[in-house]
Amino acid sequence: MLNILVCLDSNYINPLKVMLYSLFSNNENSNFDIYLMHSKIPQDKLNSLNDYIVNNWPNNSFYPIKVSSDDFKNAPVVSYYSEEMYYRLFAHKYLPKNMERILYLDPDILVINEINDLYNVDFGNNLFAACHHNKIFIKGINKIRLLQYQIEEYYNSGVLMMNLTEQRKRIEEKVIYDFIEKNKAILILPDQDILNSLYSKDIKDVDEILYNYDTRFYTYYKFLSKGKVDMDYIFDNTVILHFCGKKKPWKKPYSGEFYSLYKHYQKQVQKLENK
Amino acid sequence: MLNILVCLDSNYINPLKVMLYSLFSNNENSNFDIYLMHSKIPQDKLNSLNDYIVNNWPNNSFYPIKVSSDDFKNAPVVSYYSEEMYYRLFAHKYLPKNMERILYLDPDILVINEINDLYNVDFGNNLFAACHHNKIFIKGINKIRLLQYQIEEYYNSGVLMMNLTEQRKRIEEKVIYDFIEKNKAILILPDQDILNSLYSKDIKDVDEILYNYDTRFYTYYKFLSKGKVDMDYIFDNTVILHFCGKKKPWKKPYSGEFYSLYKHYQKQVQKLENK
Repeated sequence: MLNILVCLDSNYINPLKVMLYSLFSNNENSNFDIYLMHSKIPQDKLNSLNDYIVNNWPNNSFYPIKVSSDDFKNAPVVSYYSEEMYYRLFAHKYLPKNMERILYLDPDILVINEINDLYNVDFGNNLFAACHHNKIFIKGINKIRLLQYQIEEYYNSGVLMMNLTEQRKRIEEKVIYDFIEKNKAILILPDQDILNSLYSKDIKDVDEILYNYDTRFYTYYKFLSKGKVDMDYIFDNTVILHFCGKKKPWKKPYSGEFYSLYKHYQKQVQKLENK
Repeated sequence: MLNILVCLDSNYINPLKVMLYSLFSNNENSNFDIYLMHSKIPQDKLNSLNDYIVNNWPNNSFYPIKVSSDDFKNAPVVSYYSEEMYYRLFAHKYLPKNMERILYLDPDILVINEINDLYNVDFGNNLFAACHHNKIFIKGINKIRLLQYQIEEYYNSGVLMMNLTEQRKRIEEKVIYDFIEKNKAILILPDQDILNSLYSKDIKDVDEILYNYDTRFYTYYKFLSKGKVDMDYIFDNTVILHFCGKKKPWKKPYSGEFYSLYKHYQKQVQKLENK
């Protein structure tokens, strides 16, 4: 049984269904417990999500976790920053006490191969396993912006293997709140900035080509790898395609190498729902 | 039960499997009889194709039809022209006598929606139903080249609904052979040229966007339709994606809007074969 965590609001339920479809259909030998942390998704939508999961994949289970806004009443507010973005960092507080590991996934993802190797990663003493997006320009910008925190790599927070046992011991709410309060002005992607500024030395680095392939950079990855990372390589090896950036394949306008693939999965979800 | 015809040699068995996977998986409410006309595919490959079809889709059947080279010994030869290209035009001679209609499909195709409407097309008195590729430059070139035959539209021969009852009455071998003999020098895509030159007035026109979408022209179709024929429209409406042209998605180099989708289907076939 593999644990998956998602944290989102009602706007992302449809992309979530597509992500889960891809996860389940490409991991037919695994069963999943899906944990959804949310603050205000209405009960009827949770019920319908539960039906979607357990009716179509009866070996999987769905556990919504409602987070009370009171829990975050002391959290500093940044205007463009939804409360749900915090949740992944505090998930260890809300998940079952005996759970040792869980894979956090953003909803703008397709899982196209088996996730077992990622799931069973050897954390060592690290709190997380994640991928840094090794693009020189991104690294440059973020190193300057968050210079004082001596970031080695800028990790993407959309795919996070979580070492819950260690997190319960070592992640402190107050440290995170203080960080936000102090850096409000320069935070762009708050959860990601927090992850990188406070925990980058506690992150085990895993290969972005395999586990957090940024779909905007097909040409870039192919060029940097001298042609190795082409479409064949991706379908044989890449596990997680991440539709990073503002433009999303479920919203027009969109274009890109993986648009037709995304639409294919979206269509499969529609078919299940119209059954 | 729907009849499907393919005509090919051993080089196209893998693309054929991908095409069939897409056909079957997107037409789960239909059963298929697959007829393969060939001249020299070895028996072990035919057996393995049979296994692929009947083991994975037990309601479907596979009927290989070996065409003797003697049957075509009087056919004029054009060097770049494989014998198998002829077969679709003579299929009515080889298929069961009581069969009334069959859908011929090229192997460089993905079927992404239900084919029933195409299959049940009202032929009227026509021999075929097919799509013309309405691109001004293609039409221009071909009208000049085959001017004497007064072609109205240039139909693509990769997707052909066949009115076998009428074909048995009205298609004559000798007329086709004479045509080839006379036009050897200007034939580029022989089967298609024959279809257009001899039978274009006996073809019922069906919509290329739905039934013979040329994957090279995503931008062109979208532009001409003022944005209507976008990726959403295609997945909701288009039945047949046709990977026309020299570059094929199973051979490198390839690029294009439907490459990732093709690779997805190719991967599904691999998975079935590794089971």
